[in-house]
Amino acid sequence: MPIDLNADVGESFGRYRIGDDEALIPLVTSVSIACGFHAGDPAVMRHTVELAAAHGVAVGAHPGLPDLQGFGRRAMRIDPDELADMITYQIGALAAFARAAGVSLRHVKAHGALYPAVAGDAALAEALVRAVLAQGRDLAVVGPAGSAGAVLERAARAAGLRFVAEAFVDRAYRPDGTLVPRGEPGAVIASADQAAARAVAIARAIAIASVSGAPVPLRADTLCIHGDAPGAVELARRVRAALQAAGTTLAPPA
Amino acid sequence: MPIDLNADVGESFGRYRIGDDEALIPLVTSVSIACGFHAGDPAVMRHTVELAAAHGVAVGAHPGLPDLQGFGRRAMRIDPDELADMITYQIGALAAFARAAGVSLRHVKAHGALYPAVAGDAALAEALVRAVLAQGRDLAVVGPAGSAGAVLERAARAAGLRFVAEAFVDRAYRPDGTLVPRGEPGAVIASADQAAARAVAIARAIAIASVSGAPVPLRADTLCIHGDAPGAVELARRVRAALQAAGTTLAPPA
Amino acid sequence: MPIDLNADVGESFGRYRIGDDEALIPLVTSVSIACGFHAGDPAVMRHTVELAAAHGVAVGAHPGLPDLQGFGRRAMRIDPDELADMITYQIGALAAFARAAGVSLRHVKAHGALYPAVAGDAALAEALVRAVLAQGRDLAVVGPAGSAGAVLERAARAAGLRFVAEAFVDRAYRPDGTLVPRGEPGAVIASADQAAARAVAIARAIAIASVSGAPVPLRADTLCIHGDAPGAVELARRVRAALQAAGTTLAPPA
Amino acid sequence: MPIDLNADVGESFGRYRIGDDEALIPLVTSVSIACGFHAGDPAVMRHTVELAAAHGVAVGAHPGLPDLQGFGRRAMRIDPDELADMITYQIGALAAFARAAGVSLRHVKAHGALYPAVAGDAALAEALVRAVLAQGRDLAVVGPAGSAGAVLERAARAAGLRFVAEAFVDRAYRPDGTLVPRGEPGAVIASADQAAARAVAIARAIAIASVSGAPVPLRADTLCIHGDAPGAVELARRVRAALQAAGTTLAPPA
Repeated sequence: MPIDLNADVGESFGRYRIGDDEALIPLVTSVSIACGFHAGDPAVMRHTVELAAAHGVAVGAHPGLPDLQGFGRRAMRIDPDELADMITYQIGALAAFARAAGVSLRHVKAHGALYPAVAGDAALAEALVRAVLAQGRDLAVVGPAGSAGAVLERAARAAGLRFVAEAFVDRAYRPDGTLVPRGEPGAVIASADQAAARAVAIARAIAIASVSGAPVPLRADTLCIHGDAPGAVELARRVRAALQAAGTTLAPPA
Repeated sequence: MPIDLNADVGESFGRYRIGDDEALIPLVTSVSIACGFHAGDPAVMRHTVELAAAHGVAVGAHPGLPDLQGFGRRAMRIDPDELADMITYQIGALAAFARAAGVSLRHVKAHGALYPAVAGDAALAEALVRAVLAQGRDLAVVGPAGSAGAVLERAARAAGLRFVAEAFVDRAYRPDGTLVPRGEPGAVIASADQAAARAVAIARAIAIASVSGAPVPLRADTLCIHGDAPGAVELARRVRAALQAAGTTLAPPA
Repeated sequence: MPIDLNADVGESFGRYRIGDDEALIPLVTSVSIACGFHAGDPAVMRHTVELAAAHGVAVGAHPGLPDLQGFGRRAMRIDPDELADMITYQIGALAAFARAAGVSLRHVKAHGALYPAVAGDAALAEALVRAVLAQGRDLAVVGPAGSAGAVLERAARAAGLRFVAEAFVDRAYRPDGTLVPRGEPGAVIASADQAAARAVAIARAIAIASVSGAPVPLRADTLCIHGDAPGAVELARRVRAALQAAGTTLAPPA
Repeated sequence: MPIDLNADVGESFGRYRIGDDEALIPLVTSVSIACGFHAGDPAVMRHTVELAAAHGVAVGAHPGLPDLQGFGRRAMRIDPDELADMITYQIGALAAFARAAGVSLRHVKAHGALYPAVAGDAALAEALVRAVLAQGRDLAVVGPAGSAGAVLERAARAAGLRFVAEAFVDRAYRPDGTLVPRGEPGAVIASADQAAARAVAIARAIAIASVSGAPVPLRADTLCIHGDAPGAVELARRVRAALQAAGTTLAPPA
């Protein structure tokens, strides 16, 4: 079974730089690109899409909340219809750069505070799915693996869209399959070796240890590297090497 | 020869309203819709595209400078490559709403300070044309009729794109075919009757009187109604009625 | 006992207009002016401060969430320290226009989704109070009258700041003194006569009828007119006339 | 004669970082702090003001054009009255953080494309001076030394404001005392040693070599280090050391 290795990229803005996309993109098999609401701007989007296209990496949209200052990480109460419109706008903007670069968008993944919001709220999940569906039946919806993504997965499948379950190799999980929130002790897996070991386990469908020690099984189609984290490039290199050493095929979701 | 009657619409933003699009859109044959940089937001864009689709009015993108506070009317020095990216972004965002509404974009027309900028500067004209071309050979480029649009027309035709020459029924022209700038005496034609008479003349390819009295011939494919002007709806009604009374067919550019 | 009649003003932005401030400001005794985050821009702020100064109306800051598109009405999770900084920024910006116009700011009142947030959350209330205090001990804090404002009132008084209790003449109250949320039946008092009658009762410290019919006593120092509501000017005129006919003195909080 | 060493700081935004203000601020005697239009946000402004206050460094406002994406470096046509309002707003916002930190603003210096604009255009210079004057007669106006700053200097002095002439130790000058524009060959002095030598010469009122070799005398009160340039901290260290070795006193303008 192949697995996808993905990164969130294109998060620079104007003169501001976040992430080393030139180094990171060649290491992954798909990328989710910021669309100008929480990060990214037209020039950054074009450049990032071209970079991904040049490396044969699958391109998806990473729409976020309209909050550049908060990097889309502040929870915001958004009306579902308005959210659908915001997602349509951002997918469309990125799709234009994809078209100019001769590639097609393959998936949509919500960013920041929107990620858990659409994964856990049926009305918001439905809004995202509706927006995605209107742009094409071949766009996959990416969301959290396990119980945390169940609401979004159900909405996507009900609409006939593929759901791509995502696990985080650098984040701790609770026994119930939800993430330990940032800020809580042990939430982040700092060791690249440990992250790589978890990547291999998840790729082989072997349960990993939750924060309590109890095993947590995570069925995932894609493994995420946070492009803006310090050490992201090194982490990606280790995870990629470990997966390849374990005989896993790296490939974007079919 | 049919002529197109167009309006700039979708210029509301959040709680802020500009223009009476519900009344205006049924009176014209094409609209240029703001794309969120100088005006418009995702919800307004969706609503405006749906409105145009419901009335069978041709939809185009109206990209502008990133300056909501200045309504895109402040001249800004933009690098041509960056301008191309901004236009790509805006066309894509609007195209997503068009796709969701089951229609296709038909043209691209620069807004505000960008309109004379791309019409008069070869590098900026080329940037716009390049951005449009990458989104589809069937998108027309709209620009000023006559000498004021010559640079843009040349760039569009060189790239194999259709150029749609636009005249303004409510603005005075100089003998050389350029507009009398806003702010100068007599720049705006306030009388709806006079505007309607000019519309009929232009549609029949009869020279109109320039601000000096000398006749100025204006070969135009489309006549513009400014949607944000007070009295825009009444003006559109009169112009439409006058053109129909004169036996002119109203239709979007072929 | 005098009472203050206040309005939220300065909510236009660029070419976008909200409210008829020219007509409304002469009818009230204090105004809260938007500071550019949810509404308002530098030119609008200057003009609005000058208008208030010309009419001898007390000027206060109306800081909001950084969300022009949502008019500051979308709830957003903000870190208290960051909120304090946002409020400091907005107070300072408005204070500069007040200084230029030769007047001083008299109060600070949170706008939109921030209004209930700072009224009901101790950490956010403390953040607002801290920001206000650092700009001057003579600035009053405006918040909801009754139980809904208790947390903010306590925080303000603990810091030695005056608290100005505000009641809404055009909104229905529950028996516990909290507002009936917008969107629920009967939330808005549409009749100007009824609003005027409530204003007189509140000014005389007579309990008004809650939405259930049970009386609700509201000790208020100021009565709010929403400047952006349709009919705001007419409502202000009626309320003002009714209060004057009842012998109430209209004056900004001492 | 003492000389001031200044840096442009506070240019981070949200999660985005520019410059190493913690290291740079202790090396200079005054700073110009971004005010949220082209860079900076409320949290960054508070932090930067506190940092400057802790190091006893004089604080000034660095207002810019409303263009975060272009970092305030794109020329934009702004109406002078509107510019005055934008500057008032930004000075006020920063002044509130200064007040909270127990310090006073000492100067105002335009940023980016606004710097040459107000230095060279009488109407814009007058607009800036008017905005500054309304906030206090003790605020100095910073602008280019020599002929490039003559228009602004005249406007400031006519209003009774102090003008602080600024020279750039890392930029080449033409024989007429204007800067060689960025992008032209030799515009930037990359060598820290050369920059330090120029700093010492300017501090001693010795003419430096212009780009043509001809000497150019530059009467300057302050020397600028660009905080966002790579190597800014090292450059500041060298310039500071060279000035001290030459027996020059470093101090903010009196």
